Amino acid sequence: MAHPGDVSALGALMASGQVDPRGIRAVIGKTEGNGGINDFTRGFFTQSLMLLLAEKTGEDRATLTAHIPCVLSGGTEGALSPHYLVFSVAPGEGARGLALGTAFSAPVPNAAIGRAAQVASVADAVRAAMEQAGIADPEDVALVQVKAPAGQGGDAAARTPDGRRLMALSRAAAAFGVGVALGDIDPDAATEAAMLTDLALFTHRASISSGVEVVANEVVVFGHAPGWAAGLSIGVAPMRDLLDLEGAAAAFRAAGGRVAGVIAKGEPDMSGRIRGQRHTMLGDTDIDAQRHLRGALGAIVSALAGDGRVFVSGGAEHQGPPGGGLVCVFAESS
Amino acid sequence: MAHPGDVSALGALMASGQVDPRGIRAVIGKTEGNGGINDFTRGFFTQSLMLLLAEKTGEDRATLTAHIPCVLSGGTEGALSPHYLVFSVAPGEGARGLALGTAFSAPVPNAAIGRAAQVASVADAVRAAMEQAGIADPEDVALVQVKAPAGQGGDAAARTPDGRRLMALSRAAAAFGVGVALGDIDPDAATEAAMLTDLALFTHRASISSGVEVVANEVVVFGHAPGWAAGLSIGVAPMRDLLDLEGAAAAFRAAGGRVAGVIAKGEPDMSGRIRGQRHTMLGDTDIDAQRHLRGALGAIVSALAGDGRVFVSGGAEHQGPPGGGLVCVFAESS
Amino acid sequence: MAHPGDVSALGALMASGQVDPRGIRAVIGKTEGNGGINDFTRGFFTQSLMLLLAEKTGEDRATLTAHIPCVLSGGTEGALSPHYLVFSVAPGEGARGLALGTAFSAPVPNAAIGRAAQVASVADAVRAAMEQAGIADPEDVALVQVKAPAGQGGDAAARTPDGRRLMALSRAAAAFGVGVALGDIDPDAATEAAMLTDLALFTHRASISSGVEVVANEVVVFGHAPGWAAGLSIGVAPMRDLLDLEGAAAAFRAAGGRVAGVIAKGEPDMSGRIRGQRHTMLGDTDIDAQRHLRGALGAIVSALAGDGRVFVSGGAEHQGPPGGGLVCVFAESS
Amino acid sequence: MAHPGDVSALGALMASGQVDPRGIRAVIGKTEGNGGINDFTRGFFTQSLMLLLAEKTGEDRATLTAHIPCVLSGGTEGALSPHYLVFSVAPGEGARGLALGTAFSAPVPNAAIGRAAQVASVADAVRAAMEQAGIADPEDVALVQVKAPAGQGGDAAARTPDGRRLMALSRAAAAFGVGVALGDIDPDAATEAAMLTDLALFTHRASISSGVEVVANEVVVFGHAPGWAAGLSIGVAPMRDLLDLEGAAAAFRAAGGRVAGVIAKGEPDMSGRIRGQRHTMLGDTDIDAQRHLRGALGAIVSALAGDGRVFVSGGAEHQGPPGGGLVCVFAESS
Repeated sequence: MAHPGDVSALGALMASGQVDPRGIRAVIGKTEGNGGINDFTRGFFTQSLMLLLAEKTGEDRATLTAHIPCVLSGGTEGALSPHYLVFSVAPGEGARGLALGTAFSAPVPNAAIGRAAQVASVADAVRAAMEQAGIADPEDVALVQVKAPAGQGGDAAARTPDGRRLMALSRAAAAFGVGVALGDIDPDAATEAAMLTDLALFTHRASISSGVEVVANEVVVFGHAPGWAAGLSIGVAPMRDLLDLEGAAAAFRAAGGRVAGVIAKGEPDMSGRIRGQRHTMLGDTDIDAQRHLRGALGAIVSALAGDGRVFVSGGAEHQGPPGGGLVCVFAESS
Repeated sequence: MAHPGDVSALGALMASGQVDPRGIRAVIGKTEGNGGINDFTRGFFTQSLMLLLAEKTGEDRATLTAHIPCVLSGGTEGALSPHYLVFSVAPGEGARGLALGTAFSAPVPNAAIGRAAQVASVADAVRAAMEQAGIADPEDVALVQVKAPAGQGGDAAARTPDGRRLMALSRAAAAFGVGVALGDIDPDAATEAAMLTDLALFTHRASISSGVEVVANEVVVFGHAPGWAAGLSIGVAPMRDLLDLEGAAAAFRAAGGRVAGVIAKGEPDMSGRIRGQRHTMLGDTDIDAQRHLRGALGAIVSALAGDGRVFVSGGAEHQGPPGGGLVCVFAESS
Repeated sequence: MAHPGDVSALGALMASGQVDPRGIRAVIGKTEGNGGINDFTRGFFTQSLMLLLAEKTGEDRATLTAHIPCVLSGGTEGALSPHYLVFSVAPGEGARGLALGTAFSAPVPNAAIGRAAQVASVADAVRAAMEQAGIADPEDVALVQVKAPAGQGGDAAARTPDGRRLMALSRAAAAFGVGVALGDIDPDAATEAAMLTDLALFTHRASISSGVEVVANEVVVFGHAPGWAAGLSIGVAPMRDLLDLEGAAAAFRAAGGRVAGVIAKGEPDMSGRIRGQRHTMLGDTDIDAQRHLRGALGAIVSALAGDGRVFVSGGAEHQGPPGGGLVCVFAESS
Repeated sequence: MAHPGDVSALGALMASGQVDPRGIRAVIGKTEGNGGINDFTRGFFTQSLMLLLAEKTGEDRATLTAHIPCVLSGGTEGALSPHYLVFSVAPGEGARGLALGTAFSAPVPNAAIGRAAQVASVADAVRAAMEQAGIADPEDVALVQVKAPAGQGGDAAARTPDGRRLMALSRAAAAFGVGVALGDIDPDAATEAAMLTDLALFTHRASISSGVEVVANEVVVFGHAPGWAAGLSIGVAPMRDLLDLEGAAAAFRAAGGRVAGVIAKGEPDMSGRIRGQRHTMLGDTDIDAQRHLRGALGAIVSALAGDGRVFVSGGAEHQGPPGGGLVCVFAESS
């Protein structure tokens, strides 16, 4: 991936027959933007990907964009390397294995971002994606990855005029939606008032990004269900804080096998301290706190993986304990 | 350390008698600036420290500044925490233990930065510091920490008009000086032409920072010698690349005991790749490559230490293999 | 001014007898930091200045710091040049001329920043400074420059945990204090709820900076009064928006004479548009909106002055119409 | 233009018949990226524009991309507003008026960037574009706008491994090519050694941007020739330094009429000073010097235009005197 519009590697895999364009269900990737409200590398990648898929499948771009979740996180700070994971399925696959389901909510108007309506919308999408995957029991869900909309331009009806805060509220609402659908968060507690304030409310099984390049909640559910091929495993473990090397290592151990992809979420500790020592991420005028976070978390997880191709996303509100996060490892059986 | 001018914690230790102001030999610390040519947090800290020492010792600031190395590195990206290590000695200490020696070269004119004269000047200072420490054999040196000048303002006589490059040339010359003094680098190879170009020339035992706030090469030598108290140990190990978690862990194992301080050096791999995967540190218009590097390396070493108070400095030219670095751990026997 | 700790030019003027150290009443300057909560160039300059004044006057630093307002704004983006204006008085001066008065409020605890108590505190300090200057009628005040505290570290009692917002609230409270003292803002309207929300409330005669390096509201009043020498004039004019070249030029015309110093305040238009066209200052993840603003406003005013030594400060909340600002020019009669 | 991929305004003009898609000859615009080597907003816009044109004209994207210069400059710092100028022609137009010609060179391999081959290639393209426009005499050329390639990824054959420097060398070579074609620069002086060093070599009639999103030199020539409609005028004037308000104003006066578009080029003065005062653009670790420059120059020119839609591009090497630049104004007769 030479730049955010470069999907030539996937094109080559399709040309050689190794990937069936019609089997692609979801794409999760990192692009080398700043990860903020003015990061357009995500939109550039999505447009380029959908152009390629349209050419290869004959379907039109709008249809593809509305059915294949393309979850991008900008920011490849430090050791991180731009890359994308392509999740595809083939017919006639096996017994009980790693299951995948996707769903899109209806488009979320700016005024609904970070509100109860978005929570319900995400919860419904999670349930739809579980059904598609054939996962009946929420306990069988390993991770839910969501890309949530961050609002398109200043809208007087939006819950806040602050773009960064609207991105965070969207993540909070989506995390609540996942938590409610999985039974990890009490629906009565998942209120608008609790978003970004009651940080004790969280689910370990959600990884949420938000961005201006999507208009609906795009949901990908990973878990275990009958009717899926063996050969791929998933390991998920929480990190209790940014320096929790053991927590991160546990996810690699749980997955076993050869690492095929890694997802990590984290958060600059809002107390301003990590294990009692002052950090300077929150008050830096020149580098955004999430860029600091991704560089630090990304390096720790990349060092464990021995590879910079790790999907690291900041903004882990309600996706783990305050200041903590999670690591999810996909591995191939050897 | 609430801000770069805050030396109140050291003041309190002096007031309580735990630290003798006259025993202080060197200070090594991290301040929360950007680490670049326009980072003035280092000068602010030095001024504040010397004001405190002048008050407590009765000596004048200029004299103290010219005799106590104050090696600061700006930039506490990611998990890093602003802090400073104070190295002090007390009379009547023991048999063979962790030895410390310091030396200042003569002031380095701008025109001499990054030139052969600076190499010789650093090598002489290293020998003087070894003698002060009582270390006769270069093999007994564990690490040499240098703060080298980066030039004061645009000077037509300087080797380059590019401030960042002049900082790098100063680090290269100082690394050559250390390598020559320790026998790690062939004096005939340590030429001006080889600086920043022949990256196969390096010593594992040098940690160099450069900055506009010093005018001479300030040298601190750590090693082992008779006449020093037991109780403190030092472990140094190279990192072969930024993701070399095992290399970093080896320094912690070598030191043993309770961690009292950590120094790490690293470098964005100039090939643009780490273990074959593209990184984006070098071409980022918005975040300086050294800031990326410190955030990533700092997180890995902090995760191992379980503490963000790690002295991490970028710019490891000739201080390890290209793209690699070193970790040095001070520990107290338990 | 070679760097933020360089006060050698003032030292030379004192050494040559051109400036009497005991006549200095206030210093207003720009340092080359980022202007944000983590800009320590302001504190470095203040410490350096007070060291110089202590040496030259024999008074101690703490006393000087508590009596001489040192109003610094970080950030010399674009065409701006680091510099400081020194305001001093001499006995036996003339009839009616440019008058100067200063005052410090009591220290402002973190919990009081951006609250009614700060408004009252600033208003009282303005009145005290007017009295010192001999200005009886608020109509004779041309400009009030305030440096207001921004809070020292995270304090649970603070009105907001967001450092940038606390800086803005401090500026808002100080602007309200000036407006109330001068009769430009109705005291009943200057409530906590109105801060940063009712942007129609403003005074054209306030220029407010906030920063972590001060603990009290430091106030400098400029105006006209009997008993002051002729020879210096002041021109103040509002800018209705960032592109209001005519407004800025009016201040230069009003001052007449040879430009001796310039103060400008401005604000990124919170509507996201300037004269109907979208600007991108507010949503930029990589460059702080105030840095954008200072670079733009500074260039316009510097182009008019023909000199980059312009004190430009962002954060003009309640100091002019939304998105607008003011320019103040000091000039010497020819 | 809501974001860099938003070409809906042009789409609407085509839908309403106000713009004939087949008449479009060139597009010049500003996108809200960082303007550096890792600015992908330019590529995103180009892809989006060509998708629209392909849909409207029925031609394929590759053909359109290879024939319609799309000259984008990233970076809308400060008062600047993202926008694009669409230059189109219609048959049967008048006598002597504003003429336009375009040309593409052959693709420039990385190894040829900043070398004599690129100079010749640009000069040939300028001559071809003049011929297309019907301009026989170089004196009738008002301005040549070039988008030059900046290299695609690290290439060992490239003249320098430093991405920023390669961008600058590409601009230098293109400026030399324009100067040679117009007779403003002596061909014998326009050597590789003179690039970025002999700054006394320049043409006032070149505006060059470089970027990774183009592979050939894309040239647009503006001037006067028979056979073009009246109604549009062009005014070009040099700025002798960044604060040259009069120089910039002269271009507006020369154009007369209602402003329809503005192009400006400038450069951070490499001496580190503007009119004797130190600026801090070159040594800032956090904000790229070109971002500083665009914010400052853009504000001055926008203030004169009364509109932030100004194409401002940094990197004016050999396009004006050192530290200076040029302003070009397109105006409609009233």
